Amino acid sequence: MTVRALVFDVFGTLVDWRSGVASAFRAAGIGDDGEALADAWRVRYPGILAEVNEGRREWADFDALHLVTLDAVLEEAGLSAPDDVRHELVGAWHRLDPWADARAGLEALRERHLTATLSNGHVRLLADLARHGDLRFDTLLSAELFGAYKPAPEVYRGAAALLGVEPGELMLVASHPWDLAGARAAGLRSALVERPLENGEGSERREDPDADLTVADLPELAARLARPA
Amino acid sequence: MTVRALVFDVFGTLVDWRSGVASAFRAAGIGDDGEALADAWRVRYPGILAEVNEGRREWADFDALHLVTLDAVLEEAGLSAPDDVRHELVGAWHRLDPWADARAGLEALRERHLTATLSNGHVRLLADLARHGDLRFDTLLSAELFGAYKPAPEVYRGAAALLGVEPGELMLVASHPWDLAGARAAGLRSALVERPLENGEGSERREDPDADLTVADLPELAARLARPA
Repeated sequence: MTVRALVFDVFGTLVDWRSGVASAFRAAGIGDDGEALADAWRVRYPGILAEVNEGRREWADFDALHLVTLDAVLEEAGLSAPDDVRHELVGAWHRLDPWADARAGLEALRERHLTATLSNGHVRLLADLARHGDLRFDTLLSAELFGAYKPAPEVYRGAAALLGVEPGELMLVASHPWDLAGARAAGLRSALVERPLENGEGSERREDPDADLTVADLPELAARLARPA
Repeated sequence: MTVRALVFDVFGTLVDWRSGVASAFRAAGIGDDGEALADAWRVRYPGILAEVNEGRREWADFDALHLVTLDAVLEEAGLSAPDDVRHELVGAWHRLDPWADARAGLEALRERHLTATLSNGHVRLLADLARHGDLRFDTLLSAELFGAYKPAPEVYRGAAALLGVEPGELMLVASHPWDLAGARAAGLRSALVERPLENGEGSERREDPDADLTVADLPELAARLARPA
């Protein structure tokens, strides 16, 4: 296995969306369970992306999609919020803290590999998150560049093309088996990062028996990739 | 003037292509004047990009275009080179040293502004140059993402869209008046960085009376942008 470049999923894999979004609900005084609202918001994510990929909804970036799904969440919970608060909540996704190992882990991985994000979030959102968490990549790659959302194969293959590597030389690092399966279907390598707290304490443990590697964090990934096979 | 983001031309503006390419000719033992060959190669750059923009040549990245123009340069000079040497020379464009002020200047500018490349070079080429020179940007943007070469307006406007700013909030930083004029035609701000050694000692001094700013180097640009207008 020759891995020349690494692409990283961002939400859940590198940054803790649940704590950050829950805090934003609390700070805005919306509802009485920030985590439950964050979960309800996140769970609407695959559905609206599928609408775009299937042509049932026009291309829109995460800010626009988050506003649509936020309104659905608020309505479902019998809550409402003024426009400035709705936009403040959408903006919270730009200021999420990274997991504790992410910054140093990315630095270690960049020593031997070309690195990039490969997120469904748009470029500006990724730039804001990378600045907020001081996360360094060689470049940011986003579904926005390819006009389709993961797990569409053109996103993964497009990333390999822009990085100048063969799909089989590119590894997706992600905490979600559906994303890793999409990467493999496009010919990429895959590494599962366990993020047991992504969905809060006591969540079901994720496994992906088809992943090339399963690691607890990014420093472990750096160590495993440095080791001769 | 509110500048929220900065995009940087790369070849000539941030890296010294002439010295690096001349050295590569010398190292390869091709010809007896590396600088003259570097100049002859670079002078063919606008013409072949115009062929692409005008639809007379299919889209191709800089590695492919550099190979075409290298062969023309060698033929014109009555020289020849085996395939591995030709590819080594094309590869020299991936390993050019930055100007002395570039690294620290980019760091200073990134403190207050979103920063990105905006080069006609392809993403992988830019990633290699950024790694080689330890140049940090928030992301790499390239003509490759827009399917057209500068000075086509869609490149500049596309950069503003991906960075989530209005064209008038984005400033192109470049050492070439044709590039700055292209940026202004697309609604961007423009800053000329004088690079008196880009074409060697004793070159004609560049001026752009329409540029918003003219600076000697990137630290001066950082100081000028930090000063209240």
